[in-house]
Amino acid sequence: MKERLACYLPCLEWARQYDREAAGKDGLAAAIVTLMLIPQSLAYAMLAGLPPVTGLYASILPLVAYTLFGTSRTLAVGPAAVLSLLTASVLGPLFAAGSAEYNAAALLLALLSGLVLLAMAVLRLGFLANFLSHPVISGFMSASGILITLGQLKHILGIRADGENALQLLGALARGLPQTNLPTLAIGVASLLFLYLARTRLNGWLRTLGCTARVAGTLTRTGPVVALLLSVLVVWLFELGAAGVRVVGRIPEGLPSLSLPPLDAALTMQLLPAAILISLIGFVESVSVAQTLAAKRRQRIEPNQELVGLGGANLAAALSGGLPVTGGLSRSVVNFDAGAQTPMAGALTAVGIAITVLFFTPLFHNLPHAVLAATIIVAILTLVDLGALERTWRYSRQDAAAMAATMLGVLLIGVEAGILVGVGLSLLLFLWRTSQPHIAVVGQLPGSEHFRNVKRFAVVESPKVLSIRVDESLYFPNARYLEDRIAELVSEHPQAEHLVLMCPGVNLIDASALESLEAIGVRLHAAGIQLHLSEVKGPVMDRLKRSDFLAHFGGRVFLSQFEALAALDPQTTRRALGIRGQERASGSLPHQSTLQENDHEKRP
Amino acid sequence: MKERLACYLPCLEWARQYDREAAGKDGLAAAIVTLMLIPQSLAYAMLAGLPPVTGLYASILPLVAYTLFGTSRTLAVGPAAVLSLLTASVLGPLFAAGSAEYNAAALLLALLSGLVLLAMAVLRLGFLANFLSHPVISGFMSASGILITLGQLKHILGIRADGENALQLLGALARGLPQTNLPTLAIGVASLLFLYLARTRLNGWLRTLGCTARVAGTLTRTGPVVALLLSVLVVWLFELGAAGVRVVGRIPEGLPSLSLPPLDAALTMQLLPAAILISLIGFVESVSVAQTLAAKRRQRIEPNQELVGLGGANLAAALSGGLPVTGGLSRSVVNFDAGAQTPMAGALTAVGIAITVLFFTPLFHNLPHAVLAATIIVAILTLVDLGALERTWRYSRQDAAAMAATMLGVLLIGVEAGILVGVGLSLLLFLWRTSQPHIAVVGQLPGSEHFRNVKRFAVVESPKVLSIRVDESLYFPNARYLEDRIAELVSEHPQAEHLVLMCPGVNLIDASALESLEAIGVRLHAAGIQLHLSEVKGPVMDRLKRSDFLAHFGGRVFLSQFEALAALDPQTTRRALGIRGQERASGSLPHQSTLQENDHEKRP
Repeated sequence: MKERLACYLPCLEWARQYDREAAGKDGLAAAIVTLMLIPQSLAYAMLAGLPPVTGLYASILPLVAYTLFGTSRTLAVGPAAVLSLLTASVLGPLFAAGSAEYNAAALLLALLSGLVLLAMAVLRLGFLANFLSHPVISGFMSASGILITLGQLKHILGIRADGENALQLLGALARGLPQTNLPTLAIGVASLLFLYLARTRLNGWLRTLGCTARVAGTLTRTGPVVALLLSVLVVWLFELGAAGVRVVGRIPEGLPSLSLPPLDAALTMQLLPAAILISLIGFVESVSVAQTLAAKRRQRIEPNQELVGLGGANLAAALSGGLPVTGGLSRSVVNFDAGAQTPMAGALTAVGIAITVLFFTPLFHNLPHAVLAATIIVAILTLVDLGALERTWRYSRQDAAAMAATMLGVLLIGVEAGILVGVGLSLLLFLWRTSQPHIAVVGQLPGSEHFRNVKRFAVVESPKVLSIRVDESLYFPNARYLEDRIAELVSEHPQAEHLVLMCPGVNLIDASALESLEAIGVRLHAAGIQLHLSEVKGPVMDRLKRSDFLAHFGGRVFLSQFEALAALDPQTTRRALGIRGQERASGSLPHQSTLQENDHEKRP
Repeated sequence: MKERLACYLPCLEWARQYDREAAGKDGLAAAIVTLMLIPQSLAYAMLAGLPPVTGLYASILPLVAYTLFGTSRTLAVGPAAVLSLLTASVLGPLFAAGSAEYNAAALLLALLSGLVLLAMAVLRLGFLANFLSHPVISGFMSASGILITLGQLKHILGIRADGENALQLLGALARGLPQTNLPTLAIGVASLLFLYLARTRLNGWLRTLGCTARVAGTLTRTGPVVALLLSVLVVWLFELGAAGVRVVGRIPEGLPSLSLPPLDAALTMQLLPAAILISLIGFVESVSVAQTLAAKRRQRIEPNQELVGLGGANLAAALSGGLPVTGGLSRSVVNFDAGAQTPMAGALTAVGIAITVLFFTPLFHNLPHAVLAATIIVAILTLVDLGALERTWRYSRQDAAAMAATMLGVLLIGVEAGILVGVGLSLLLFLWRTSQPHIAVVGQLPGSEHFRNVKRFAVVESPKVLSIRVDESLYFPNARYLEDRIAELVSEHPQAEHLVLMCPGVNLIDASALESLEAIGVRLHAAGIQLHLSEVKGPVMDRLKRSDFLAHFGGRVFLSQFEALAALDPQTTRRALGIRGQERASGSLPHQSTLQENDHEKRP
């Protein structure tokens, strides 16, 4: 019972051994992550079109929920850039950003996303994430990074410029450029420069100044918080709010109140597809981060339980005024590097954010949107990896096509459409690739019991028996191809009386392929040819025995191809076996003229 | 050039050798098929919600087009039950049946379907038909048969009863039952009985009366035409039209005029998905019929050219006032049995139908709808094969689930939704099935260089080297599973220093799996384990060489697993090789306690 409970509440396991040392390490990591999470939370909430404070709310209870239900010891959950982008792209066309309906719909989206994740856990549907192949995810990330950057430029310029895709955004930016607010631009560019240098150079400078690696690393991570505080100071000192610099404004103090988001059946149906997409993408990202970190300490994460952890986190976000959340890469790495030992670090981070919400929100009144936008841009540009397209192209053109389609779809049509295009194309290409398996006509290697491809080896072919090897499982993507190919081969071998299908590479015959085999058997029969099978694997044979096929097809199932030929055309087989090894033609050249029955009849 | 042309115009090939004998045989077959096609054409047009004469129009030019472009020598093209059902289910919700808009939309549907088929031919997209697995097609056919039968019962009863799914139809029939028109019911039931007996018993009776098999077969096939003529006579004699028996009414005489259907961009976009579905289903059905018949004479059909043939036939239907067409099973079998030698039989059938349209349409004025409905029902019920569900269940539960979902979807929601549900579920189940390939930890069989599953054989495992065999290609459906599984296995083997992935069953590593392998390599490295590969197939290796993987992963690629172990843990490997065969424990029991390194250290 206890074990069973520990399976659903992984926290019970580590909590038993929790001690002072672990608590100290977790506390330090939590402090660093809190400082990093404050600007991120505010920024990603803004990116989602929501009041900045919702980002802070989404960084309290969801972290506690993941601490209770998650299996990764170092994953740091919270708002994430791509989920915020998806949220904005789903809700943008439906409601005015900033309206009460928009905010309520974001909560509903988080709720649905939490329920979808939990449903996937219960129904063991985690494999659905496989639909999102690596090229699609990679293309989506790169294009999202570009789209997010374009979307944030308006905050750097201090203008209004909205759009659902890259072209619309570029157009809006070009039209708005003359209205650029110079103080905002100054703050934005200064922040970008500061954050960029903090990310790329600060560590080195601090090290040359004599800091230890640890101290330098920690100080580097506080860059965004320092930028935030500095900008607040500057805006306050120079009264830039009056000069047209848009600031966050009043943030309600106090913890979020718990309440269920308003449930609307029609809106629920409308948001459900987006919620599924958000769940899948959040899950894929989170699991890959968690797995990478867990492996470093030879720990394990349990993907199905991760669904529960993330589902719980999203439900908590929905109940406490947040937005969809998932495990973030940068935060989690910082958490790991700072020495977090258990998920308790997440709960302690939640305490840090709660204290911030309780006491420090007045600080953010004068925080410029431009600084938050700069935070987003510097963080997101690390996601953009255009080189991946070239590398993938070199490796596999089909995968590169799926990646390019996803990128173009996201940039030119929109986020959701782009992913659907990518997933659809991956499936199509996959089906195309598996729909034409390698099928070879084989013959007997002289002097041996082996059968090889007649196009690659000088082999003996029986005039009466057509031997065909299939190098792939037989299932619906290739069932019809098999029919076509065998019809073609039979029409090329008018003298054949038997056809032996050699199945050493067949791991599965599904119902479609079984129907095809039956059709092939019937058609061959009508043409006066008997179908046989050879080298059928055990599990495939077990399944065939459960159908009527073996009783009706009229042929035999041979243990080996040699046995089949020995039974169906003993004369040719015995003669081929008798040819001594030395007489064999060198057999490695492709398309070498095959040693036909007639050929070696002429031999001495 | 001439060969090239013959490739696109297969008629050039057979036309060269066309002689009097072939013409005679084709003419006879055409006469029989014409008699069969007349009632079918009228009935399937009515099923599609169109004026009966459109069915005749669809049996003239389309047949000529297929004669020119098709590759099957015996396929009989024309209106078909399932395509008519699809047409009605697509157009029914949009326009009132019988309206000019409805008829124009049906022409547009045929035009789009022709264009889709031609586009598939040019882009070589015939493999798309693979999406329709056998269980989905079979479930669709059975459910369609039931749905069509329910939909035709109103004609037998002489009432009005419409609906988009089985429940709606049943409800409408129940409500309409009190209004049953008795003369109509009498004609309907008599026709059903007559047609049923003609189909099942007539042949036997004629044979006992001394007819040859050939004559009996031909006479049997004229059953529907006889029923048609008899019913016209009865209606005329007893003036049943006035008694409420609905009849076909005036049919315009003369050949159809050629014209392009009205093109409407919005309607085109609306009908395109249905046109794609109609094209795919028509293509799948037609090709399977054509292939079955071609095989009987060891002829071949060329699936890609079939797309051209069917595409041309549908374009011709659209231009000459018809409806979507495809190759029909029953007609084609009759054509084949009657001795058709070349596609010229189709052109001659077209002449027969043209003569009918020119001179005999007044005959059909008094033809009752009930007789056409009976023709449809008796023909369609042969499609219903509920036993297939049970057979498939016995063979594969996943395939049976896809079939059942398609059937329920078609019956309870509608035709298109049902197919989409079935295709979606097939893909999901397929992905689920391939997402968890067989992955085994292997060890060395004592006294040999072979490596087998530790769960099935008593083998020697190296404490330093973890050997893992994957029995499937590595691609996106299972890439993440591989990551999970290896993380799990590594956490179970804390002492491992090397991990060798044995790849004899890997036919492909796609970009997703490559990313996964890289991630696995990096994670293993972080955990102090080095990844290696062994027994990588040539084509897979060629592709890996085009990526950075081999340069970065830090491990080696061994030709065999034995070579890998000999290099990484020579001590254990040599010791295992030294164990004589006789000392081996019997190795066929699964889960037998494995012969660990420690175990045989204790041996003498």
